[in-house]
Formats: sequence, structure tokens, C-alpha cells
Amino acid sequence: MGLVSDERSPGAGVGALITFEGGEASGKSTQVELLAAWLTDRGYSVVTAREPGTTEVGLAARRALLDVDDELAPHAELALFIAARAQLAATVVTPALTAGKIVLLDRFGDSSVAYQGYGRGLEPERIAEWNRWATGGLVPDLTILIDVPVSDAVERRGDKPPDRLERAGDEFHERVRAGYERLAANEPFRFCVLDGRQPIDELQSAIRSRVGELLETRGSQRMAPR
Amino acid sequence: MGLVSDERSPGAGVGALITFEGGEASGKSTQVELLAAWLTDRGYSVVTAREPGTTEVGLAARRALLDVDDELAPHAELALFIAARAQLAATVVTPALTAGKIVLLDRFGDSSVAYQGYGRGLEPERIAEWNRWATGGLVPDLTILIDVPVSDAVERRGDKPPDRLERAGDEFHERVRAGYERLAANEPFRFCVLDGRQPIDELQSAIRSRVGELLETRGSQRMAPR
Repeated sequence: MGLVSDERSPGAGVGALITFEGGEASGKSTQVELLAAWLTDRGYSVVTAREPGTTEVGLAARRALLDVDDELAPHAELALFIAARAQLAATVVTPALTAGKIVLLDRFGDSSVAYQGYGRGLEPERIAEWNRWATGGLVPDLTILIDVPVSDAVERRGDKPPDRLERAGDEFHERVRAGYERLAANEPFRFCVLDGRQPIDELQSAIRSRVGELLETRGSQRMAPR
Repeated sequence: MGLVSDERSPGAGVGALITFEGGEASGKSTQVELLAAWLTDRGYSVVTAREPGTTEVGLAARRALLDVDDELAPHAELALFIAARAQLAATVVTPALTAGKIVLLDRFGDSSVAYQGYGRGLEPERIAEWNRWATGGLVPDLTILIDVPVSDAVERRGDKPPDRLERAGDEFHERVRAGYERLAANEPFRFCVLDGRQPIDELQSAIRSRVGELLETRGSQRMAPR
């Protein structure tokens, strides 16, 4: 559950944390944008962020992750992502949830468990623990996992030059995909796994239906439409 | 104990990890330099590094730590330091120890326990745990803690503009100092606490005496003098 303060003012919204996860080129950003527009139209107050990169610390971490020529040690890679995540949690996510907003995140803690844990071989449970600690205990209310076979993702990228993570090789990305599957199997109520190969609008409509459920079953309180 | 491989070649040296800790302006860098010169003169193969800042990742973390205008979340600050430390451990410290070198570090894991733990209020035990995990289990063979009262440190800095940590205020630095004291009390065999107010050469001579002991009691094997 997101850190929703019980003392929020009656006019404030539901306060929900929804994260988007999946491999490279799975279409997460597009779906976040479409969902944000839909929720905003329905009168919700929405905050979207992308990890790493929304905060100054995240941008610095992103530069370190992408620009460093040295072989990046797996624990260093993990710590840079956690730095970005901790800053995002403290300065963007928690204040927004406390204010009753819906926060949509393009990647969050599960990315580190899947990539640095299952992908690079660090202990997944330790990573999950560090995620929770560094974010003040934030756990998403709903995580949309957009699943795309690795071969499809390579095709989707087309001629765009691959970045450091994309260059890591198919086997790495297969491990990441299997890791996500495992995370979803362990927490079936938090995860909603969707096939990323379906058309954009069909995928979006499946996401809206699941998000609508979440907001309803939580007895959500809608903001007055603008 | 440093990660000294038992299979090191007979020609290699002792392989020892010696860290320097203490508050701001305690004279650590000067003492590291003098000790490195002395050890090198005696035929040891020495590697010195400063944290953060020796690796590319460390430099990026350092920039993030110093340049960020936002209020830096304590967990983000910690993770940036751990990122730099993990990279330093993997690319500099562990290879040097395995090659039988003596590694002198200007700050290491204890800095995070003292600053982000006792100073900022994060759980010291957790930080110590992340340090160990992220560095592959590196624990210094000897830690020289140079203790200087906070008021002296402020005086020593003189007109130099204070950086973000230096600006944190005297109470913060008092907590850091007390934290270091506690760490030293908990591990009396690893820590050697020295009064940083004594003249540079007297302090250095106390350090040499303690380091000499370490190398002797470990049945150290000296490199052939150059």
C-alpha cells in the first residue's frame, strides 16, 4: 500500500501508487502517458515520473549509469538506482500520495530486483529489502507488468543504438523477463501481467479496466472534475 | 580482514587494508600521503584512494552529492556513497589486496555509518550491513581514527567556503564525532584512535608505529626494496 495518510483533507483524492514494469521497449512510457491522460480527464490528480531521471539526483545517477566507461560493478549499479529511487520517493512520490494524488511511475523497485537481482545475479531478497528501506516503506498498490518476448523487444528497438543495459545481451534480458514473472507469481494481487504484443489501445484498455477496479475497490474518492 | 587470497604468489606483499576516518579537516589526507611515502620507502607496494572520487562512478557520485540543489534525501545520500564504495572495492581495493598490496583509503564504510547513520539518523547497523554487502565483505585490517574536536575543525577550515556536509552544522558534526567514538569502542582491535590536535609529524609517527605493528604481527612478507 502506498503511504496514504489517514489525516488527508476530505477534498483530496485517493492516493495510489501504480508502477509500470517490463523489459526494454515494452511500451511502458506510452501506456503511462495514455493512462495519465485518462485519469486526469476523469478528474483525478495525477503525478507521473520516470526512474531514474525525474529528480536531479536521478539525472546524475542516470549519467553515471550511461556514461561510465569502466565496467560498472553490479553493486554500484544497484546503489545508483537506489539513490535515484530514494530521492524520488522522498521528494515526489510520498508528498504526492500524502496529498491524495495518483502516482504513476515508469519503473520502480521491481526493476532493480529484476535487472540487478535476476539479471546480474545479486540476491533479489536483499534488493527488495534495500528498496523498501530506502523509500521509507513504499510498496505499489498496483504494478502493471508489460510482458514482451526478448526477440520482439530487439525488433521494436529497430536501428536505435542500444544503451549499456540494452547491450547486455539476450540471455541477460531473458533472465530479467523470468525474474519479473517470478515477482508477479509471488505477489499475484499486486501484479497485473499484460501481453505487450497486443495493439496499444487494447493494452491501454486492459490497463484502464484494472486501474478502474483498484480505484473502485479502494472506495476511492474522486476529485471534483475540473 | 582484507580479502587476501591465500594463493597469492610468494613474491607478493602482505595485502592489508588500512582506512583513515575522522571528521572534516582532521588531516586525514596529509597523513595518508606521509604514510604511503614511508611504506613505499620500506619496499611495500602501496595503493591509495580517496572516497568518493577515485573511480569514474565515485566522481559522478561526488558531483551528485555536491552539486544537487534539492534537499538530498538521507537514503539517497547514503546510496550515492555506497555506489562509489562498491565501485572502488570491485575495481581498486580487491584487486590490489589480491595482488598483496597495501591499500590506504581516505574514508571507507565507517564514514557512512558515522555521517549518514549517527549524523543523519539512519540505522547504523543497516548501513554497516549494506557496506559489507556492497563491497563483497571487505572489512579494514586497521582503521586510523583521527579525532579532532568540532570547534578545532571549523577553525582549521579557515576562510575556505564550506561544502554541503560542512554546512550541516556543529550539532551534526558532534553526532558524527560521537558516532565514530562508538564505532571505535565496539571494535577496539580494528580501530586506533589518535588525537588529531598533535603536530603532524608526531601524529604520523604514532600511525607508523601502529601500522608497523600490524604488518609485523601479521607475519608480513616485505617486497624486495626497489
